[in-house]
Amino acid sequence: MFDPRSIAVVGASTNIDAMVNRNFLKPLVDHKYRGKIYPVNPRADEILGLEAYPSINQIPETVDFVVCAVPAEFVSRVVEECVEKEVKVIHIYSAGFSETGEPEGRELEQRIAHIACRGGVRIIGPNCIGIYCPSTGMSFYPNLSKEAGHMAFISQSGGFARGVTLMGEKKGIRFSKVVSYGNACDLNEADFLQYLANDAETKTIGAYIEGVKSGPRFVEALSEAAKKKPVIVIKGGRTTAGTRAVASHTGSMAGTDLLWDAICRQAGAIRVYDPTELIDLAEAFSYMRVLQGKRVGIICIGGGESVQAADECEAAGLVVPSFSQRVRQELLTVIDQVGTSVRNPVDTRPALADSRPFVKMTTMLTTCDEIDIVIIQVPVTPGLYPQGDRVIMGEIEAFIEASKSSSKPVTFVLPTYGSVDVAQFAFKITEKCHNAGFPVYPLVRDAAKAISRMAAYRQMNAVR
Amino acid sequence: MFDPRSIAVVGASTNIDAMVNRNFLKPLVDHKYRGKIYPVNPRADEILGLEAYPSINQIPETVDFVVCAVPAEFVSRVVEECVEKEVKVIHIYSAGFSETGEPEGRELEQRIAHIACRGGVRIIGPNCIGIYCPSTGMSFYPNLSKEAGHMAFISQSGGFARGVTLMGEKKGIRFSKVVSYGNACDLNEADFLQYLANDAETKTIGAYIEGVKSGPRFVEALSEAAKKKPVIVIKGGRTTAGTRAVASHTGSMAGTDLLWDAICRQAGAIRVYDPTELIDLAEAFSYMRVLQGKRVGIICIGGGESVQAADECEAAGLVVPSFSQRVRQELLTVIDQVGTSVRNPVDTRPALADSRPFVKMTTMLTTCDEIDIVIIQVPVTPGLYPQGDRVIMGEIEAFIEASKSSSKPVTFVLPTYGSVDVAQFAFKITEKCHNAGFPVYPLVRDAAKAISRMAAYRQMNAVR
Repeated sequence: MFDPRSIAVVGASTNIDAMVNRNFLKPLVDHKYRGKIYPVNPRADEILGLEAYPSINQIPETVDFVVCAVPAEFVSRVVEECVEKEVKVIHIYSAGFSETGEPEGRELEQRIAHIACRGGVRIIGPNCIGIYCPSTGMSFYPNLSKEAGHMAFISQSGGFARGVTLMGEKKGIRFSKVVSYGNACDLNEADFLQYLANDAETKTIGAYIEGVKSGPRFVEALSEAAKKKPVIVIKGGRTTAGTRAVASHTGSMAGTDLLWDAICRQAGAIRVYDPTELIDLAEAFSYMRVLQGKRVGIICIGGGESVQAADECEAAGLVVPSFSQRVRQELLTVIDQVGTSVRNPVDTRPALADSRPFVKMTTMLTTCDEIDIVIIQVPVTPGLYPQGDRVIMGEIEAFIEASKSSSKPVTFVLPTYGSVDVAQFAFKITEKCHNAGFPVYPLVRDAAKAISRMAAYRQMNAVR
Repeated sequence: MFDPRSIAVVGASTNIDAMVNRNFLKPLVDHKYRGKIYPVNPRADEILGLEAYPSINQIPETVDFVVCAVPAEFVSRVVEECVEKEVKVIHIYSAGFSETGEPEGRELEQRIAHIACRGGVRIIGPNCIGIYCPSTGMSFYPNLSKEAGHMAFISQSGGFARGVTLMGEKKGIRFSKVVSYGNACDLNEADFLQYLANDAETKTIGAYIEGVKSGPRFVEALSEAAKKKPVIVIKGGRTTAGTRAVASHTGSMAGTDLLWDAICRQAGAIRVYDPTELIDLAEAFSYMRVLQGKRVGIICIGGGESVQAADECEAAGLVVPSFSQRVRQELLTVIDQVGTSVRNPVDTRPALADSRPFVKMTTMLTTCDEIDIVIIQVPVTPGLYPQGDRVIMGEIEAFIEASKSSSKPVTFVLPTYGSVDVAQFAFKITEKCHNAGFPVYPLVRDAAKAISRMAAYRQMNAVR
């Protein structure tokens, strides 16, 4: 499924810019997919420079994988051809099945599932965008990274499959496998979880699930996967209106919210509530050194920011201990006392002339046995000082230098105020932190939530 | 205080780029402050083209307002000079007073408060950045908007005074008065609330408060203000660590969190938990038409996004009713049924060729008596279609056109995935929505929280 020798795209269009070409056919070419690519269209000889075929049957060689992008009423015919051709997997992009809520759609879905099952063909979908797997060159969106990584994501929503991949990329996360699997009439969440649990390329698994096909099998697959690597789950449809939306989206039964809490807890998986939280936590798992506890040391530039940071950490279930006299005295050797604090949060002033005290202060915290993790918050307000860009960049570089050799996890928080220019500058320093191996969050509340969940996960796994 | 005839900046520097020049003196010139400006520095004849004076006493004319930016130990001398010169208000930027937690700092603060009080001079601060008032040309940061608006913000944190102003500007909010008042040794939150309650220029008040000087007076001022206009309050120091940070920041006593909940509820003020939430809610109050109830109609492009939107609205306390058969039938005249839903959320497909159905669909919702407010979510993924920028812009324009004459409030949600380029494009369409008079949020959860709080406020005020 993730490494087919050949792929046929049924419904490839003579209109070069059509969605199916843009999102399925062209990315295979762009990603240098290593197998053969066969566009299938009865009215074309050639599409995007590739020889086209009128039907799957007429392709002279073996076809391992089919992308099916034709209207719903033609899909069963395509599945029959897949059976004849001994195709291994068909990804059905087409919609118009059980998610319509109409008996015809449900029956059509059952029919194609039956044809495929009897004929030994496995289905991804229908009503989904399929697979992104950079290591083999499969993709569902133009211009995604060609670099493979260690995060997997399975999703009943195509929009979230795309969205999470794009959000992850922006945070420096690279993916092993992303699967959008829609209505799941054959292959489902349990199959994918089982596979990814044993996939050496995958170190963290994310999932957006609207409903499961078999409760017991799902719980078993989730538990097995969570024993081997962190599994982060968003349950779509946790309210009355959300549950109704789930029925129209993928035709799933949503299940009760409390049940999902219990399932995740028992399986050792981590429940989050939206794609942003999922990526925030994935970022923590992908960048951070191992967390030994939940005592946080905070460095802030700014008093209100310090108060807010302390409040948000404790509200998220972390502990912000007051530093001992010994640590305070040590900090006072590098921090000017006026308008600052050394109690934790350490509230310091901008390093206008000299950022060396920042290196020392950070080293004191990363080696301090009174805390388990360091949060460094630098508000991105370059307008505040002459050459403010340089001042902030100097601070960031000092923090990075001091944190590089730390055995404690360190995370950056860069709240960004102001215009597009400032946002662009913030993007640049965020990249710098990522390249040095540190996670970056826009607000302390986001960092605190991710850290708190990671701490809970570590604790849970230490017990088991 | 907000409209002095003349301002002296004590501690203006011969180093042009010094913080005090950059943040206090130069902005007065840039903002075309209409009164006289007197830099005070014993070692300068002229600063930034303005005649400088060695001390306040030597200024030949009346001085209404003094910005004091000299080290703490010299402040009492400056206050004495203010008394002699019959200055009305002194803003003390200097830190090193009660917030140090040391007896010397506390005594120094008491001493200056005493000198000022006996001499009839009012103090803003110490340990704060003072006033931004665009209508008279006062400012505390370079390059803030010169346009005046209707939002006031008072803050014990200078960082948040700046941050909230900058965040607000980005959202098209303009300010009447912003006051950073730090340790509040004389003028405090109750004074400012009382003033702003009766200030015709101000329609919404925001506040970041770490501690109050007199409980009963504060409750009275808060209630009075909240009777006249929405008052949005962040309480800094709601946890143990936050309370400790408050003590080092402004030397305030934080009070218990439950007490603050009760005070806000009884006064009719709205409590939020961080500057982002404050600006989100201010945006709702500044842009939205009057909200009659909490039934939300949602238009989404994308199925997972629809589920998530429904979940987030209901989780925030809003209601997402299922549309009646009549409304569904009407929607089906403009929405293709495959891969979509008309139950609420309305899950539709991108308007690739023709955005007129979007106009019709939106009008159906804005005139539908089954809902009180419309949320329109458009994911910003321009890479998805050829000329995706144009497709998305066309959708936004159709939505705006249909919403312009709506008597129901309409709000946009524009989740942004991907790179800096996409963020820039999102910024452009956000501006378009703001210019047309609609609020914009990055995520449904942010919009839902703001709407829910606004609905609660309307309900509370309808009852009183």
